[in-house]
Amino acid sequence: MSDATETREEPRHQDQDELQAHLKEVQQLLSRQHLVEDLVHRQEMPRHDLVEQLVHKQNIAGLQAKLDELHPADIAYILEALPLQERHEVWELVKAERDGEILLEVSDAVRESIIEAMAPQDLVAAAEQLDADELADLAPDLPTSVMDDVFRSLDTEEREQLRAAMSYVDGSVGALMDFDLVSVREDVTLEVVLRYLRRFDELPDHTDQIFVVDRDEHLRGVLPVNALLLNDPETEVASLMQTETLTLQPNDKADDAAQAFERYDLVSAPVVDGGGKLVGRVTVNEVIDYIREEAEADQLAQAGLKEEEDIFASVWDSVRNRWQWLAINLVTAFIASRVIGAFEGSIQKLVALAALMPIVAGIGGNSGNQTITMIVRAIALGQVGEDSERRLYRKELKVALINGTVWGGLLGLLAWWLYGDWRLGIVMTSAMTLNLAVAAVVGVMIPMTMKKFGHDPAVGGSVLITAVTDSGGFFIFLGLATLFLL
Amino acid sequence: MSDATETREEPRHQDQDELQAHLKEVQQLLSRQHLVEDLVHRQEMPRHDLVEQLVHKQNIAGLQAKLDELHPADIAYILEALPLQERHEVWELVKAERDGEILLEVSDAVRESIIEAMAPQDLVAAAEQLDADELADLAPDLPTSVMDDVFRSLDTEEREQLRAAMSYVDGSVGALMDFDLVSVREDVTLEVVLRYLRRFDELPDHTDQIFVVDRDEHLRGVLPVNALLLNDPETEVASLMQTETLTLQPNDKADDAAQAFERYDLVSAPVVDGGGKLVGRVTVNEVIDYIREEAEADQLAQAGLKEEEDIFASVWDSVRNRWQWLAINLVTAFIASRVIGAFEGSIQKLVALAALMPIVAGIGGNSGNQTITMIVRAIALGQVGEDSERRLYRKELKVALINGTVWGGLLGLLAWWLYGDWRLGIVMTSAMTLNLAVAAVVGVMIPMTMKKFGHDPAVGGSVLITAVTDSGGFFIFLGLATLFLL
Repeated sequence: MSDATETREEPRHQDQDELQAHLKEVQQLLSRQHLVEDLVHRQEMPRHDLVEQLVHKQNIAGLQAKLDELHPADIAYILEALPLQERHEVWELVKAERDGEILLEVSDAVRESIIEAMAPQDLVAAAEQLDADELADLAPDLPTSVMDDVFRSLDTEEREQLRAAMSYVDGSVGALMDFDLVSVREDVTLEVVLRYLRRFDELPDHTDQIFVVDRDEHLRGVLPVNALLLNDPETEVASLMQTETLTLQPNDKADDAAQAFERYDLVSAPVVDGGGKLVGRVTVNEVIDYIREEAEADQLAQAGLKEEEDIFASVWDSVRNRWQWLAINLVTAFIASRVIGAFEGSIQKLVALAALMPIVAGIGGNSGNQTITMIVRAIALGQVGEDSERRLYRKELKVALINGTVWGGLLGLLAWWLYGDWRLGIVMTSAMTLNLAVAAVVGVMIPMTMKKFGHDPAVGGSVLITAVTDSGGFFIFLGLATLFLL
Repeated sequence: MSDATETREEPRHQDQDELQAHLKEVQQLLSRQHLVEDLVHRQEMPRHDLVEQLVHKQNIAGLQAKLDELHPADIAYILEALPLQERHEVWELVKAERDGEILLEVSDAVRESIIEAMAPQDLVAAAEQLDADELADLAPDLPTSVMDDVFRSLDTEEREQLRAAMSYVDGSVGALMDFDLVSVREDVTLEVVLRYLRRFDELPDHTDQIFVVDRDEHLRGVLPVNALLLNDPETEVASLMQTETLTLQPNDKADDAAQAFERYDLVSAPVVDGGGKLVGRVTVNEVIDYIREEAEADQLAQAGLKEEEDIFASVWDSVRNRWQWLAINLVTAFIASRVIGAFEGSIQKLVALAALMPIVAGIGGNSGNQTITMIVRAIALGQVGEDSERRLYRKELKVALINGTVWGGLLGLLAWWLYGDWRLGIVMTSAMTLNLAVAAVVGVMIPMTMKKFGHDPAVGGSVLITAVTDSGGFFIFLGLATLFLL
């Protein structure tokens, strides 16, 4: 994002109402345009009519003017909210030199739909406007031939940076890092630093500190920009710089970096390589984007969606995004169904079992999901040590026992009242309590085991626990009933 | 948080491993301490033995030294990871003047457990160290008598600020705002501003811009700190300040403010009242905390947990936190059970129905949850207008039809193969497809309706859709079977 553009598009829209007003305006301009095209199409207006051309031009100009005054992030919002055809029409009207920054802002799904429709040379032009770290974010979505062209257009340092940026895996600090930093030597005075800074038109975004390095680019400390303002220009950098600063490494987990930013209220942090050489920095805006994306990915994963969906994407894209989860659930539901199948004789003798069994399974699943959510959160915050594991099992079992007695007891009474058989009520209460206990144990065990084997405990836990409490619930309830009632 | 302390505790720990190492060290010091106490208790060591006293003092001193060097956020982490008794022991050893800032950092549940055990005068002392906006965050957890004492100790301006800060509801910009800002007049030169700034020992955290106000405190614009560095000191503020800046109002939604920070990569933003008077500012660290808390609250709500749990809280606290959700699910499960009860005659005649019906209900629930998650996300991002509503219904119905044909067809074949009745297979396929269609329609309808009535579409959707697809699934499957098979 060039600094010049940014000043021009200083944001003024703080709420969604204003954003939606922009969207509406664009939509109106578009539909007025479509009306004209429609009239032409229906031959009610001769194709080369002067009036039509004028109206057309006027509309296009209006739309373009509107788009020019919007921030790239706002244009991204509008593109995401428009159906495919209108999206492409608006995209055509965006100034080519802003293509790159807007592509960075739109969601992955929408970006794909835009890139598909762009000519290779336009893609190369858009990519060439970006910094190395931004280009690395876009690279996976670009055709290889486009990336080759872009690569050839870079100078040696930029190539080096792009190679580095692309080498880091998603979820690492390297993937969040940018190369836009200001560094100085420790043996100069603030006066010298200030003179050096004045040679910049503008400092990089989020420059709250300047990095102090030695001759070999090793990080020696950081100099807060505020120190430049508050101190005598004759002071030496060395006497003001902070040496006990948080430093990251490119292979550190982005999660840890995000927690550090949150904990210590950082705006930027230096990234050094294994030898202590300054290679880049992470800024708080990247961290916010990361936190937001992670939270969203978690929510989507919870519902078994592989990725965010462009709400205007084709039906097939949606089916593809969702089928895996449904397939897994089909298998677990089928297993649960076979457990019931094994007790068909008992159900035939006492058909009330069929009506009551989903309650036992369902409540077990809900309770298990509560446990698992709580444990996953505690693990994510690093609160669960080995010594607290047994304590957690004990506690969750106690909670299950109380819930089993209270809710299981209530349901037992209901079953007795409905079917006039007190033994059925006792089986109901016992089955509920047992299934809640299973849910408690497995709810602690699943995330703890995943953690031990280095998996993300947040993924897949919900499916697993539901599978266990469904099949387990049916088995416990129908098994107890077969033993004691028939 | 005083600036002096902050410099001393410059954070050095970027990853969880290091945090956990601190935790382990504290735990070791604690258990060594307990060992000594244990020996005394068992009379194996005389109570007033000099050695015991020495060891005791040494341990305590070691613990204290360790705690003193840690950042408040890191002490908060340790407190959260310790069981109640050890938590209180560590808390006793924390320097009293740091109590306030640490209380701000711990989670709500843990804060309660600490405040409960503190003497009123210690609470007053802790609260008095805080700024008005921080105090407002803590206030709901403090006893009224403590707040009265604190209030009396404030000067008029601080009282005013505290009253203002406490008047804003959670989730508003006012609740995120602080009063720690630097403002200047527009008719002075940068030289004057710089002289003014040098009178501060340190600028407030996250001062990336200085606010320009007129005689009546009306916001005229902002002056980026970088502009102070890059321009001639003789320049007037008026000629450099940016007037088209994002401004917030105290009653704006915190959500909108967070999106604006994310969109426009802000570090701070001014807050003005209805008359345009500058009343405070929002900084990016508050925004990060807000985003993280919201994401967490969503995840907890998804699993029916009312709030975060202190993993060392009592069993009763956990039961209280979870019972509502279980009660709601009990009711929906009971309704579904009565739907089955209505078809007991059919099940008795064809017991296979009992084994197959949970599959129809389960897959419907999963598919409905996928739809609802996708729609809630699109609504949160402001992508769903009135004109896209019908399009969404159509699309989700098509997805349901495809899934019904594919997965329903597969299950129909399985049912045929298992029970040797092709008519049962057809009923299975039809019921699956119908229930998926119900899930699609209700999955779009629930969040859209909630949005229309001004409710948060993210809350409760999952329970509702599962209730509908459970009862609906049983009804459709058993109803079709009764009509066509018996």
